[in-house]
Amino acid sequence: MKILLIGATGTIGRAVAARLADEHEVISASFSGGDVQVDLGQSESIKAMFETVGKVDAVISTAGQANFAPFQALSDDDYQLALNNKLMGQVNLVRIGAEYVKQGGSITLTSGVLSRQPMPGSASISMANGALESFVKAAALELHQLRLNVVAPVFVKETMAMMGMDTIDGVSAADTAIAYEAAVTGDMHGQTLDITDYI
Amino acid sequence: MKILLIGATGTIGRAVAARLADEHEVISASFSGGDVQVDLGQSESIKAMFETVGKVDAVISTAGQANFAPFQALSDDDYQLALNNKLMGQVNLVRIGAEYVKQGGSITLTSGVLSRQPMPGSASISMANGALESFVKAAALELHQLRLNVVAPVFVKETMAMMGMDTIDGVSAADTAIAYEAAVTGDMHGQTLDITDYI
Repeated sequence: MKILLIGATGTIGRAVAARLADEHEVISASFSGGDVQVDLGQSESIKAMFETVGKVDAVISTAGQANFAPFQALSDDDYQLALNNKLMGQVNLVRIGAEYVKQGGSITLTSGVLSRQPMPGSASISMANGALESFVKAAALELHQLRLNVVAPVFVKETMAMMGMDTIDGVSAADTAIAYEAAVTGDMHGQTLDITDYI
Repeated sequence: MKILLIGATGTIGRAVAARLADEHEVISASFSGGDVQVDLGQSESIKAMFETVGKVDAVISTAGQANFAPFQALSDDDYQLALNNKLMGQVNLVRIGAEYVKQGGSITLTSGVLSRQPMPGSASISMANGALESFVKAAALELHQLRLNVVAPVFVKETMAMMGMDTIDGVSAADTAIAYEAAVTGDMHGQTLDITDYI
């Protein structure tokens, strides 16, 4: 399969690329690296990316920015980053990208379990993740030429270690990548894939 | 209790006002009617409303605009209306309104079961509703001086009749109001209240 992977230079993105590279042609996209550059916050940039890459069998996004901050400290800009980048950036990947996915292909987005298992500081991220999961469930009802799903990672051990957190509850990026492969090769549609169901 | 009800002129809002009016002082707010006017899409308007009304025991929102449309027809403006008005309008009611709610009071927002039970045409509404439910769950972890919940109505019979739909699966606005009263008088926090649990 020809797979366009957006967010390819991130911790999860690199692990997804590594897992898929043996059997598939992976085209990597990210804000400043990869085979093609894209700014998820700009629809025109998303359109330009798809025009450059052309038709693909699958689109995977492991991208999307949003900030952790105490509720009282979250600014208008923090909410707008979560909405414009993590949420609408990925929603626009579906709106714009659907016509670049071959019949029977798939689009897989990334939310996170903070939608359903929040923690202090996650209000804007939880909001964006919950929005993505409900959007995918709803939009899938009207997308018949492709499958649309969203993977909800837990904290990956690599990120937790970097943040000085105990990694015991984390899942490695390599294990997280299993759920993305399942979304691309499986037959689910409109689903939120919890990592813990795949490891 | 002194209760500020935003969206008071809508179908659900009027029913909530009617249910609460006997036992409480209800201050009605809406875009163009009620005791005080507010544009949920403008933070400055929300601030002005709270300055006018002053401290209250409870804030209820039955407001928030978003459009139904086929997925292929949903425009950038449709998504922005859902995000700026229904979602961030209500999020900003919490961010700005928290300091106007007396210790031990409550804020109750409105989502809708389309977050979890979508239908064709609901992509932008489902997205906003899912965002609200996850936001409430997350923000509640950091709000200790008040309770924050969200009511998820199903279609109300009055709206279904107006749209020419069969009303057999609907719930009357009067019955829907029961869940809002429960949110104000109960002790739940961070919860999504499904109407069907209260009738």
